[in-house]
Amino acid sequence: MRILVPFEATRPKTRLDGVLDGDERAAFARAMLRDVLRACLDADHDPEVVATAPVSLDLSVPVAVDDRPLSAAVNDRLATATDPLGVVVADLALVTPAAVDRLVDAAVDADVAIAPGRGGGTNALVVSHPDFRVDFHGVSYRDHRRVARDVAADVAVVDSMRLSTDVDEPADLAEVVLHGEGEAAAWLRERFALDAGEGRVGLRRRE
Amino acid sequence: MRILVPFEATRPKTRLDGVLDGDERAAFARAMLRDVLRACLDADHDPEVVATAPVSLDLSVPVAVDDRPLSAAVNDRLATATDPLGVVVADLALVTPAAVDRLVDAAVDADVAIAPGRGGGTNALVVSHPDFRVDFHGVSYRDHRRVARDVAADVAVVDSMRLSTDVDEPADLAEVVLHGEGEAAAWLRERFALDAGEGRVGLRRRE
Repeated sequence: MRILVPFEATRPKTRLDGVLDGDERAAFARAMLRDVLRACLDADHDPEVVATAPVSLDLSVPVAVDDRPLSAAVNDRLATATDPLGVVVADLALVTPAAVDRLVDAAVDADVAIAPGRGGGTNALVVSHPDFRVDFHGVSYRDHRRVARDVAADVAVVDSMRLSTDVDEPADLAEVVLHGEGEAAAWLRERFALDAGEGRVGLRRRE
Repeated sequence: MRILVPFEATRPKTRLDGVLDGDERAAFARAMLRDVLRACLDADHDPEVVATAPVSLDLSVPVAVDDRPLSAAVNDRLATATDPLGVVVADLALVTPAAVDRLVDAAVDADVAIAPGRGGGTNALVVSHPDFRVDFHGVSYRDHRRVARDVAADVAVVDSMRLSTDVDEPADLAEVVLHGEGEAAAWLRERFALDAGEGRVGLRRRE
């Protein structure tokens, strides 16, 4: 399946600025992007980066530069798609080929498969319905359910921790260290260790 | 399957004290507990509450009072179990019968099935191995993986957003409003609305 992976190439992961400096955020964001692309490739799909600026990745995956807002860039491609089209966000550092396949499998019997992200977001979709369009702004999970109702598209929701864990905030980094299996997790583990206190675990920078 | 549901009956959900007062925390915790029990019952399992103090629930589910720490109370029951034994924490307000079944199904080919919780916790287990014991203190997901290795138990990890979302912190409440299907979600929606700003959605109390 063709899977779009949108990527903010210019100022990625600004909400991690209390923990990672600008160069680190850029390196970590690219590591996560490569993890997502490798998971798609390993599951025998055809990922395609849609980036806001040119990005070099060392992977044989096409990169389209599209400086429009994310939703417009995706909807333009949905409008001309003749086969089911996947969209997976670039910051899913826990994604595995099995998780990608759960998304794709969920789409077999539904017009739209959605993997919600933490905090009301949408982390992955497969769209088979000709009239469904995305809007990633705001509480996009709720909005995508509404759009699906409006165009009478059946929805399958994918219940996956790996797909729901987009990495936006410092607390998310601990999830990557705990459960990640790819380049982004290795990158983080070199620099940070788990820091267990009361409640949920955090990270501390290695000396 | 017999499924233990441990419940802190005396001072539940203290980390929600910035958002809910004491009576509300008690009511909300019981609503989540009932949701977990109903999901187990609807999936045709046999849940059993292990509570730190007597609790009345209006459901025909046995309640054992055990004032030992959670891990000791669970391990005592593991030591005498002859069949696979499930453990599901009481604050999984997103749980559904299908999510319970994914846990139980994962245990068919493994000695231990584990559903990780956010922040390094363990939200659900099925234990078939005679020597496996739990320790819910600290980064219990990592510790349970280590215990499994030590006793040579095969582990299956269940990739479920519904099972990974325990409700401990204010940000978790938005997940319940967004994705919950039971009593706890209805209780919250009566009192709170989604509050979308930048980034992840939060809640605001209704007027």
